[in-house]
Order: sequence, then C-alpha cells, then structure tokens
Amino acid sequence: MEREHNLIPGDKLWKRFLYRIIYRADTKLGKLFDITLLSLILVSTFIIMMESVPKLDKKYHVYFIISEWIISVIFTAEYWARIAVLKNKKNYIFSFFGIIDFLSLVPFYLSFFFPVTKYFLIFRMLRMLRVFRVFNLLDFMNDGTVILRALKNSSRKIYIFLLFLIIFSVIVGSLMFMVEGGRPGFETIPQSIYWAVVTVTTVGYGDVSPITPTGKFFAVILMLAGYSIIAVPTGIVTAEMRNKRQNLELICDRCGNEDIDDDARYCKQCGKKLA
Amino acid sequence: MEREHNLIPGDKLWKRFLYRIIYRADTKLGKLFDITLLSLILVSTFIIMMESVPKLDKKYHVYFIISEWIISVIFTAEYWARIAVLKNKKNYIFSFFGIIDFLSLVPFYLSFFFPVTKYFLIFRMLRMLRVFRVFNLLDFMNDGTVILRALKNSSRKIYIFLLFLIIFSVIVGSLMFMVEGGRPGFETIPQSIYWAVVTVTTVGYGDVSPITPTGKFFAVILMLAGYSIIAVPTGIVTAEMRNKRQNLELICDRCGNEDIDDDARYCKQCGKKLA
Amino acid sequence: MEREHNLIPGDKLWKRFLYRIIYRADTKLGKLFDITLLSLILVSTFIIMMESVPKLDKKYHVYFIISEWIISVIFTAEYWARIAVLKNKKNYIFSFFGIIDFLSLVPFYLSFFFPVTKYFLIFRMLRMLRVFRVFNLLDFMNDGTVILRALKNSSRKIYIFLLFLIIFSVIVGSLMFMVEGGRPGFETIPQSIYWAVVTVTTVGYGDVSPITPTGKFFAVILMLAGYSIIAVPTGIVTAEMRNKRQNLELICDRCGNEDIDDDARYCKQCGKKLA
Amino acid sequence: MEREHNLIPGDKLWKRFLYRIIYRADTKLGKLFDITLLSLILVSTFIIMMESVPKLDKKYHVYFIISEWIISVIFTAEYWARIAVLKNKKNYIFSFFGIIDFLSLVPFYLSFFFPVTKYFLIFRMLRMLRVFRVFNLLDFMNDGTVILRALKNSSRKIYIFLLFLIIFSVIVGSLMFMVEGGRPGFETIPQSIYWAVVTVTTVGYGDVSPITPTGKFFAVILMLAGYSIIAVPTGIVTAEMRNKRQNLELICDRCGNEDIDDDARYCKQCGKKLA
Repeated sequence: MEREHNLIPGDKLWKRFLYRIIYRADTKLGKLFDITLLSLILVSTFIIMMESVPKLDKKYHVYFIISEWIISVIFTAEYWARIAVLKNKKNYIFSFFGIIDFLSLVPFYLSFFFPVTKYFLIFRMLRMLRVFRVFNLLDFMNDGTVILRALKNSSRKIYIFLLFLIIFSVIVGSLMFMVEGGRPGFETIPQSIYWAVVTVTTVGYGDVSPITPTGKFFAVILMLAGYSIIAVPTGIVTAEMRNKRQNLELICDRCGNEDIDDDARYCKQCGKKLA
Repeated sequence: MEREHNLIPGDKLWKRFLYRIIYRADTKLGKLFDITLLSLILVSTFIIMMESVPKLDKKYHVYFIISEWIISVIFTAEYWARIAVLKNKKNYIFSFFGIIDFLSLVPFYLSFFFPVTKYFLIFRMLRMLRVFRVFNLLDFMNDGTVILRALKNSSRKIYIFLLFLIIFSVIVGSLMFMVEGGRPGFETIPQSIYWAVVTVTTVGYGDVSPITPTGKFFAVILMLAGYSIIAVPTGIVTAEMRNKRQNLELICDRCGNEDIDDDARYCKQCGKKLA
Repeated sequence: MEREHNLIPGDKLWKRFLYRIIYRADTKLGKLFDITLLSLILVSTFIIMMESVPKLDKKYHVYFIISEWIISVIFTAEYWARIAVLKNKKNYIFSFFGIIDFLSLVPFYLSFFFPVTKYFLIFRMLRMLRVFRVFNLLDFMNDGTVILRALKNSSRKIYIFLLFLIIFSVIVGSLMFMVEGGRPGFETIPQSIYWAVVTVTTVGYGDVSPITPTGKFFAVILMLAGYSIIAVPTGIVTAEMRNKRQNLELICDRCGNEDIDDDARYCKQCGKKLA
Repeated sequence: MEREHNLIPGDKLWKRFLYRIIYRADTKLGKLFDITLLSLILVSTFIIMMESVPKLDKKYHVYFIISEWIISVIFTAEYWARIAVLKNKKNYIFSFFGIIDFLSLVPFYLSFFFPVTKYFLIFRMLRMLRVFRVFNLLDFMNDGTVILRALKNSSRKIYIFLLFLIIFSVIVGSLMFMVEGGRPGFETIPQSIYWAVVTVTTVGYGDVSPITPTGKFFAVILMLAGYSIIAVPTGIVTAEMRNKRQNLELICDRCGNEDIDDDARYCKQCGKKLA
C-alpha cells in the first residue's frame, strides 16, 4: 500500500538505520517496531472508547489522560522520524498513510483549544490498515487490491445507482408525506424522506412506521421495490468482481482465444505456450 | 437520453440561437444555461422540503412563496422556449424529458385550486437526470444505460418474482392471521399481510411482531424463507448484468445481430466472421 | 404449466365444446371464460380479506356471505365441468392445478363445521398462477420456468445452507441465553433462538434486543456474520441462474467449443453451422 | 466428512463387528445405530431447550434430569466404543467429529460442578452434521463441500472485508457519538458503534435510532453506504462459487494441476492435452 520504492533513505548512517526500522518489516527490530506501533494504535483506540463512558472516565480519568499524552508524544516523535530519515520527504507526507499519520495527531493538539475534537483521535484506527504490511500478508494485500479495484471500477455505476436511489427516496418520501401528512414521524418532508431511506434499504428501525391503511399499502409497495432494487448494486459489484479473474490483455496468438486466466501459462483452447 | 437527433431547430435566426443554448451543452452559454437550470431545480426541491417544516414555514413563508413563483415562472418560460424553437415540436413534447418538464409545472398551477398538490412539485427532481448531459458525462450515461438495459431485460423475470412474492405474502399473512388472530398488529388479514411483507423483505420495523410461541415459530420459518428468496432477484439481475459483457459496439453487418459476446469471432446467428 | 397435451376431451359434442372454453384460451369464449375466472378469484380473495376486518364485516356481513356462496357455487360447478369434459380425468385431478382447484373449494364446505377454516379460502389465490396461460404470456412462462429450474437445481445446496443456518442459530441462541440469561426476550432458549434468527436474517424487529454490554458485543459479532452469510444463498442461486444461459448439450464438432448459447446457430469460435 | 480410510478397525472379532456398526452405514445394524444416534441427539437438544423454560422445568424437572442422564451415559459409552474398536485411535480423537463428540460430553460432567455449563450441551447439535453420511446423501455432501470450499477460498477476502467494516463502523460510531452526543442510545462510543453495526448491516432493531435532524441525515448516508457495501461479500462468494464450475474430477496427469475449467482442452499449466 505504501509505495516504498518512492521513499529513499537519507545519507547519514543513523538515517539509514532508522529507515530500516521504520519502513522495513524484514528485520527483527523493524518487525518489533511495527508490532509496537499496532499495539499502541489499538490501545489508543480502546482508551478513547473507554473515555467516552462517564462511569469509567470518572474513575480512571487521570490514567486515561496520561496514557493519551504518552501515546501522542510517541506518535509525534514517530511522525517526525518518518519524515526526518527520508530524502524525498514530500512523497511520504502526501501519501495515503502520510496524511493519515498526520491526521491522527492533529486532534490531540487541537483538543487543547476545542475539547470536543478529541474524539477525532479515533481516526487513528485507519493506521491499522498497515497491518498487512507488517505481517507480510502479501496474499491478503492482493485480495484487498482485487476488492478495491472491483469497487473502483464499478464506482461510476454505483454513483448512478445512488443518484437514482436518492431521487427515488425524495419522491417517495414526499408522496408519503401527503399520505400520512402530519402523523408522528411524517411531520415534514425531510422526515418522510428519512423514513423512505430507512425502508428502501431494508434497515427498518421502526422508529417511524406507517399508521394509516393507505400508508401501509404504500409502504408495502416501497418494500417490494426496495427488495428488488437491492439486486442492482450486488449485480454491479459481482459482475465487476468476476472480471478480475482474467488477464484482460493476453490473447493466444495461435487460436485467438481471449479467455485466459491470470495464472495460465498455456492456452486452454489450443495448448500454445503463452508468452 | 434525449434523442437530440430527432429535434430540429426552427428556421428563424433567434430560434437557431436559442436552440443552441437550450439543447446543446457544447457552447459556453449553453453550459451556463444548463447549470443555472440544475441549480434552480435543486433550489426549488430544497424550498419545497423546507416549506413542509412548520417552524421554518412560519418564519420564511413569504420568501418561500416568492421564490416558488419566480422559479415556476422561469420554468414555464423555459418550457415554452423549448417548444418554440423546435420545428418538430411533438418529438419533444412526448419525449421522456418533455413529459417530465410538463409535469414539473402542472402542480404549481394546480395548487391555486388544490393547495395540497403543491408538494407534487418535488417531481421536478426528475429533471435532475439531465445532469449527465450537462457535464458531458458520456461514460456515466453509458453505465446508466447498461444498468437500465439490464433492469429492462430482467424486468419480466422480476415481475414474475413479484407476483410469486405477493401471492406468497397474502397466503402467509392469512395463515398468520389464523395463528395470532386478533392480537395487536394481526387484527385483520390486510394487516397480517403487511406484517408478512415487512418480514419477508427483511425490513422488520417491529411495529408488528409475533407474540405467541406458535407465531414466533411461524415467523422464524418465514424469515429463513425470506433470507433464501432474496437471492432470486439478485441472481436475476446479476445474470443479466453479466450478459452485458457483450461487445456493445459490434453489430453483425450481414444479419444485423447485436447480441455479440466480447469473445466471439463469428456471428452466432449467421456465421459471418466478425471484423 | 398445465401439461395440456395430457388432457383429452371426451367424445360427446357438448364435452368438446366445453373443453374448448375451459382448457383453451385461443377462442373468444375461452378467453372470456378465463378472464371471468381470474376476476372471480380476485374478488373472492378481496372479500375474504375484507371479511376479516371487524368494522367492515359488521356492516356488509350479509353481502360477504352471499357473494362467497355464489362464487363457491360457480367454482364447484367449474371444477365439476373441468372433470366432466375430460376422457382422462385422473391426469387433471392429480395435476398441480387440479389439486389447487380442489383445495380452493374444500375450506368453503369445511367452514360449515369448522368456521375458522374459512380463511383457508385465501389459497384460491394460487389459481391466479393461471394468469400466464390466459394472456398467452409464453415469454413470461419461459422466464418463470427458468427461475423455477434455477431454484430447483440449487435447492439441494439451499437445504444444506438452511441446515447449517438452523444449527448455527440454535447454538448462537443458546449462548446468548447464557449471556443475557432471563432478561426480557431472553427468558428461555427457544426465545433466544427466535432472536438469533431475527438478527442473522437482518430482519431485526427490535421486539427483542440485547441489553447488557456483553450481549451487545455478542450481537455485533452475530450481525457481522449474518451480513457475510447472506452472500451464500445469493451466490448459489446466481451461479445456477447463469448456467441456464447455455445450451449444455451442444458442442461444436469442428473446434470442440462447448460455450454455446441457447440461441446460437453458428459456433462463435470457428463459425461452423450448428446442427 | 470423516476420513474413514484413516480409521482401521482393531484385530479382535468383536472390535471388527462393532466397527461395522459404528463407522459404517451400509449394513442394517449400522444404519439402525446411526438413526438411533441422530434421534437421541434431536431428543437431547429438544430437552435442553425445554429445560430452559421455567414453566416446563417446574413440571417435568425429574423427567428432564433422568433422560439427560440416560442419553449422556449412552453417548459416553458410544464415545468409548468409538475409540476402543480402532487401532489408530488418535486419528479419530483429533478429527473434526472426534472433537465434537468429546465436547458434547464434557458439559454434562462439568455441570455437576458448574451448573450453568449445562446449556453448552446444545453443542451436541453439531453431531447432526453426520446426517449426510447416514442417509448416504453423497450428492448433498458434494454440494456441501462445494459451499464450504467456496467459503474457504473466499475467506481471506471476507476477513479483509470484515476488517474494513469494523474500522468503518468504529469511525462512523464515533462521529455519531459527537453528533448525537449523550442522547439515549448514544451515551458512549461503544454504544454508538453498536448502533453503527446495527445500521450498516441493515438489521435495524430500532432500540437505538437517531433523534436530531443532523443525526438522521448522517444515518441516511450510512444506510445508503451499507446498502451498497452489502454487495461486496455477495460479489466475493458469488465469484468464488462460479469458479467451482471447474471440472472437479479432472487432474492433469503430467503436472498434477487440479485447477481445470470445464471447457479446457489443454492443461493451462503445462500445456498437456487433457483426455
């Protein structure tokens, strides 16, 4: 995920040494560093969660504050080190993980001025995505890439689908507002739209549900529609996922067969060795 | 989406000029016109929503009314202009967007006589679908077409599926009426059918839920059935979507067959070698 | 759906005449007969539903009873006629529709002795499935057959899936009983299993929901599992549905290509005319 | 499922005789033995469920205890016999069913000391999976294997998906905590995460639902996201399931490649012509 070939260690010896520890997971020290980091992220996330529980916060407030300080100082030092050891600092700073690393620090310092921002520290969890690199889970990374690629390739279709869905929900919600007009949960159009989305996505909280027979009849139609509509995003992603199985560029130059799997070395139609 | 090749500008110069602005998005003025229109639609939708909120309506009632008047007058003028500049007026009037443009005006004038119809103005949102044309989002339009075609091609199967589902829900609801007979939410057969649909589509509001052990046992079976049934529409649309892996640009120039798979080298209808 | 080639009209002239009206939809009278029948079924279903609404029943009780009598007498006559005009009576009596026609009469006569059975009349709705034959909706029937065949072919896999799901729900429910032990909705193991099914199928009524933090944690895991499990029946049916697209028996005898669509007349790989 | 070729009966005659009854379903006695066993498992599961219902337990407590004793003694004897008749005892003891058989006994004996563990006896239900062997349901076993293999092959992708989903839920839950801060159901971050999971998996109990307009707006976005996300696991499993269209019986006899598509004529790994 981190395009490491873009990151070049600085010249000094200590920079090269730190670079190995921070950016490489193939030495013992490097692995230890990464695992420590992951543990700290987990601990930090856990502390933020616990802090939000009044009962626990009252009891352990001091401990929470202290550990947060310690972890944030460590993360700040680590962020500084990550930049310091590199020659080409920009590549890291504006990379996906560079931005996440930065964002996971900001809320801590902001919280001195705006206490509420403290909870944004939970974004630290995104750093967890490094887990794949740490454990050298190459196969996992490949699979993750396949999923992301399928999502990316079908994103345009999903945007269109969402646009349709939103227009659909707005119209259905407005109609329902006219039907159930003013009854609890349908007091305004935005509230009725909220109900329409809750229904069409089959979430169905039940905090708002139709009361009049007309409203119920209407809701039944909406539910049946939603039940059929759910097939659309599934169909989109599934079709896209299937595509990722083939090498789309290879063509057998003897028989012209284009249906060649990624892992094929011979054409399955005529037996020719593939380049 | 608008089959523009069917629309021919009138002869007079000002008609040709207006035609360019209204129906074409490739000039600066044309683009500006379209973006203004989209913004007005969004503003109009937003106002209708806000108007339905009593608190806001009390405060800003006059402003809401005025903006609605202004926007509706503009839309009326635009609708008139759209027709005026064309030679072949019928093509537009009875086209998909022609009808929507008309319908988005009607509720405003109707609301003088029947105030409740005002909220039908929300149908204006459908005009938003023009968004793809404005931003020249050809790829998006293609994807949208793929989705719509897949839905259209599988619509027959989905109708059958819905017919089965409705018959199934009616029967299950009636059985449940006999089981839970008279308990709250199961007082009548239509109400029990409402519950059956809420359950089988996995919406599950919870406004009605089985109370007796027998009823719960029955509901469990229904839920397990619904969980398996959901696979059917998904399967239908997915299978149809997969089929769209066809080469959409190829047409056999001997027999006109358009159903050509991506990996085909010969037309499967007449046997002609494809280019 | 009715294997009509198995039904042979009797010898007498009036039998041949009635046979045409009842079993054929290609004459004017035959079509009229079928449409009348469908309307009566719809009316009958509607009446049964309305009868279950106390308010309406009080008001129109006599009318409901009378129309029920009339419709049931007509259906009885029709059932008798269907048998009378045939030579090979058994084929009809034990066919799918023969049984449904019979079952749609029984509850009426049973209801003299056991009033509650009256509501079983709703099964009459199944007779609606004849709709496809009446309107000569051959394409619809084919599509219906495709769906049914896909379901039938994957039924074995779905049974296994359901067995797993039931065992899974029983175990999860029991574990939850130990966690939430005795709290409302988790008083007994069967009730906890009910909750487990409601959760894993994503219905989520909310009549029972976890209360303790441990219970909520547990429920979260179950929901995530259910969210992944839903993919299984979908995958099964989709895979099966896709298969129905190809002619599974045809192989091109020139190039051996087996990937031949049902509607292909030439091999898409080598251009050979298919037999 | 039980790799029986690994189980070799002991030398003595009675061992060979018992081996046949216990491990083989192809003799009359063997079948009888298996069916008795399945019935006992069902009865045992049923009793444990009923025992948890206070009303029934009060009434039939003694009968429940006695039958539990009897069944557990039989199961213990059976477990001992299963081991005794084998030469290679380890293979069974550490096999899937060996472990389940053992685990289904432990809670009974443990419950003398820790009464609560009694309900773990419900795990006995897992022994039911033997059902396929008993009825010689080979086709069912094959189908089950196909499902399990598809799940296993896509497990890595599903783990990644779950990791994303968990991180996503934690972040969304925390944001919602800041939005709805302190309102019922959103008192702490863990509770808000619980809500996020309930929503994104479309379970939607409704025990917690957004109250403020901002919260509702936020929830709508989450629901629409969840509605699209559900397509991912489905896409994964479906794609995997489709792959199982491979010829499961063919193995390349030159290179041992087992990944052979149904339509392949040459091994795609070594280019050998397939028979």
